[in-house]
Amino acid sequence: MSGAERLIYLPLGGAGEVGMNAYVYGWGAPGKERLILVDLGVTFPDMDTTPGVDLIFPDMSWLIERADRLEAIVITHGHEDHIGGIAHFWQELRAPVYCRRFTGHLARAKMEERGNDPEQVHVVEPFPAVLEAGPFGISFLPVSHSIPESSALVIDTPAGRVVHTGDFKLDGAPVVGEPFNAELWHEVAADGVKALVCDSTNVFVETPGRSESTLVNNIADLVRKSSGMFVATTFASNIARVKTLAEAGHAAGRSVCLMGRAMLRMVQAGRETGVLADFPPVIGHEEAEDLPRENLMLIVTGSQGERRAATAQLSRGKYLGLELAEGDTFLFSSKTIPGNERGVLRIVNAFSERGVNVVDDSSSLYHVSGHANRPDLEAVHELMRPEMLIPMHGEHRMLRRHAEAGEAAGIVSIIATNGTMLDLSGARPVVCEHVETGRVYLDGVLKIGALDGVVRDRIRMALNGHVMLSVIIDEDDEPLGEPWAEVTGLAETGRSGAPLVERIEAEGAQFLSRAADKVLIDDDKLESGLRRAVRQVAVEEIGKKPEVTVVISRLA
Amino acid sequence: MSGAERLIYLPLGGAGEVGMNAYVYGWGAPGKERLILVDLGVTFPDMDTTPGVDLIFPDMSWLIERADRLEAIVITHGHEDHIGGIAHFWQELRAPVYCRRFTGHLARAKMEERGNDPEQVHVVEPFPAVLEAGPFGISFLPVSHSIPESSALVIDTPAGRVVHTGDFKLDGAPVVGEPFNAELWHEVAADGVKALVCDSTNVFVETPGRSESTLVNNIADLVRKSSGMFVATTFASNIARVKTLAEAGHAAGRSVCLMGRAMLRMVQAGRETGVLADFPPVIGHEEAEDLPRENLMLIVTGSQGERRAATAQLSRGKYLGLELAEGDTFLFSSKTIPGNERGVLRIVNAFSERGVNVVDDSSSLYHVSGHANRPDLEAVHELMRPEMLIPMHGEHRMLRRHAEAGEAAGIVSIIATNGTMLDLSGARPVVCEHVETGRVYLDGVLKIGALDGVVRDRIRMALNGHVMLSVIIDEDDEPLGEPWAEVTGLAETGRSGAPLVERIEAEGAQFLSRAADKVLIDDDKLESGLRRAVRQVAVEEIGKKPEVTVVISRLA
Repeated sequence: MSGAERLIYLPLGGAGEVGMNAYVYGWGAPGKERLILVDLGVTFPDMDTTPGVDLIFPDMSWLIERADRLEAIVITHGHEDHIGGIAHFWQELRAPVYCRRFTGHLARAKMEERGNDPEQVHVVEPFPAVLEAGPFGISFLPVSHSIPESSALVIDTPAGRVVHTGDFKLDGAPVVGEPFNAELWHEVAADGVKALVCDSTNVFVETPGRSESTLVNNIADLVRKSSGMFVATTFASNIARVKTLAEAGHAAGRSVCLMGRAMLRMVQAGRETGVLADFPPVIGHEEAEDLPRENLMLIVTGSQGERRAATAQLSRGKYLGLELAEGDTFLFSSKTIPGNERGVLRIVNAFSERGVNVVDDSSSLYHVSGHANRPDLEAVHELMRPEMLIPMHGEHRMLRRHAEAGEAAGIVSIIATNGTMLDLSGARPVVCEHVETGRVYLDGVLKIGALDGVVRDRIRMALNGHVMLSVIIDEDDEPLGEPWAEVTGLAETGRSGAPLVERIEAEGAQFLSRAADKVLIDDDKLESGLRRAVRQVAVEEIGKKPEVTVVISRLA
Repeated sequence: MSGAERLIYLPLGGAGEVGMNAYVYGWGAPGKERLILVDLGVTFPDMDTTPGVDLIFPDMSWLIERADRLEAIVITHGHEDHIGGIAHFWQELRAPVYCRRFTGHLARAKMEERGNDPEQVHVVEPFPAVLEAGPFGISFLPVSHSIPESSALVIDTPAGRVVHTGDFKLDGAPVVGEPFNAELWHEVAADGVKALVCDSTNVFVETPGRSESTLVNNIADLVRKSSGMFVATTFASNIARVKTLAEAGHAAGRSVCLMGRAMLRMVQAGRETGVLADFPPVIGHEEAEDLPRENLMLIVTGSQGERRAATAQLSRGKYLGLELAEGDTFLFSSKTIPGNERGVLRIVNAFSERGVNVVDDSSSLYHVSGHANRPDLEAVHELMRPEMLIPMHGEHRMLRRHAEAGEAAGIVSIIATNGTMLDLSGARPVVCEHVETGRVYLDGVLKIGALDGVVRDRIRMALNGHVMLSVIIDEDDEPLGEPWAEVTGLAETGRSGAPLVERIEAEGAQFLSRAADKVLIDDDKLESGLRRAVRQVAVEEIGKKPEVTVVISRLA
């Protein structure tokens, strides 16, 4: 069997989290499969686990080592968790990138930004057009989501047809992008589906999904009822929502102004590619300044509480000449992503202090999700009747719940988390290999490994503070002068009432005065002894064990 | 008017957040009021804003400066956000502490732990007994909450009666503590209430509160349906829930084992004070190890994802000899506090990987809140019909919404956040002073100010990393040898491919070689020049601007 050709599936990211999607498919003899990569996304750092990090990527080492076998990089849609890593890894992967027009527009800009050739991004037509990539025939099946031209992938392989859903919902009127088309899905499934690799984001939501188009009247009513300025926020990349908001504002008779760079860039991209040709007219912020506030609606970035985005700036004061006041209304037309609650609440409370009425999505009137809920997923399971279901795009608990739903419908289902390679060639999926995976951080301009200790050291400094102790050893291996300490992130004065640096320096001096010659000539011994001395005095004085850097300068 | 005696209200903590409650009342001529303090609680740090901090207190400076006028410290109940700061400030406040028996038990332990005299804590009887404290007569009115002997305070003053609710809900069968007693509240309100100072935590919840007693059957049913081990978590200080869980486990025929130090301590305190005399029998963890897992129910600490608590340890592996396995059930009988979502989800996913079924409170079957919801608050407004309503215990948005509810009922309502002193003597509350307030951090064994820069420096090191550069200047004000760099929390190698420390040292050496004499003799100039040089090379090499400590050692 080992020499027989096989169909493999290997998630490198996205299967075990919501974010940084990256899925590999391969066909060929073991170790010689021709490969394609579906999506290469990012996820976002947080202060708890990744302070100072700019972006988080999946560890692509496995694929980079096999880049010579990579036929194509295929992108399902333009959200950052699917497209955000392309330009950061293209130099190492060097395969052509394929996607639809709007996604291509975003991908090319990203390639250019990082000095890659934008011509490596190729625009493809949707299903039934077929992209040939090595042993694979790939069709981009239009699906409804919250950004234009989102696609599932119909991947025809020598072992049968795989349907990789990408992000999707079942929306008959999604405001932007193509509506859900059951007939098209039937057509795709007609000759049998080997494997359905399926979005799991909303598997815990037990009610059927609602259409984006249900929101516009609710929001327009809210705008009409509001007396002051009306401001709404959502993800800039939720282009459907941006359009819904703009249409609602327009319907309520207000002039609409977009604010925040990401928002302007997205709508611009939509206009340039024709997918937002019918976007309502908008005004610039200078013009907005001159309008009576009750005639104005702003649509702004920062729905997740991002400190530098328009929402946060408006909560603190003036932004681009506009300032919220008593009686204005602020709408969060968005869901708060777990982990962002405190930041969002900080903003809500700042608005409350200004007398601004804040409306969130708790009523369900002003926000719908872009992902399929459990009943919708179950409907798709039935539509496709695949031989096997492989849940993706979700935390472990979601993959698990989704697999349970598949099994309940009599479909063989398997949980394959990042690094789990499945052989899909047979009647049932088989785990055939475990690949080392993980995360890579963009830190400034560098990519650093999640486990190389850089971020761990930052967290330690943040928790414990930092002490630097410098000593000079002269030509005769004797201490020269007194040690010198600097502390950062620690109290200046401890229990004794003396400055902490002085206590540390005194303790260091005492250690040196008592140190044996064999310690004084040995940097390692000297360093560890001094570190211990510093920690001990810090515990006595302030009750903390700081990170300690000992600098030994030897006059040679 | 300035010489007339007046009744003042001054929140120092708790009015603008949920946590660190501390409310001052005073009566007397302005600046000479005799004072009482109601509660002195803590709030908890997070990595975003307070890394490395152990606890957060309100800034008590205003009261400490006036400690000679403080008649009493009165504690409504034993939750940390009401009692946790008592022992940390007692030396500076030195007033007798009054509370009911169970709260006193906890308070005394806290006093002893920090070397204070536990005899300063005095146990009082509930309403109608009256504690005389200067110009105030204070009664502890039993209210239903989630910890035994919770009390509202009926504070009689020369200007009239103030009712300070503390934390409460309207529960006719609260499992522990006294049930809500409408007649008692009527009696309190009969002769008129000047001001109702009222819990605002749940003002956004629009359904009437549910009784703790509704849970036991739901939970027992869930336990009966579960085949493997059953584990439930809640706040250790939610003693009502701990008892509900134990009773449900018992009713389902399981042996119950409590795990986690806080849990054991709380139940112990309840037993010792008699308020948990009817707590079901429990077994120790050694005994639990020997039982078949389907006969066992654990009740454990760590519902908020705390990394060292029992729940987190069980999600990672063995804890006190017990380990969860495929088919076991884990119940979060708790609400996740905003900010803790990621930590809790990390644990849920870890359980999912072990095949453990996780049940959370999304069904509302297994958790109820300990606070009054909006309809309950409105009922209390009607019961009391106070002259004025002062919302407390809540974020600004909650205080605001609560004040709106009061105004809608025709009650004069005012938002007074931390530091806002109100004069309650007249028919309407009047803001008479703004007091400097803020937060104080317990950091190791020290109290440090929130604004003194210590935590800011930690956050900067966490975001930017840290570089230490050491140079030696000899007796002739010339550099001696080469500069020496150490980096922490930064990548080892930058864009040039050379080690970052070497590039920094080379840049430092170059700066020194070009430095004019007037720079070399001036520590400030030398330091700022070197810092700039280090930052510049760091930006070139790694694209980050690190925190820089420059150490200049002069051989005198």
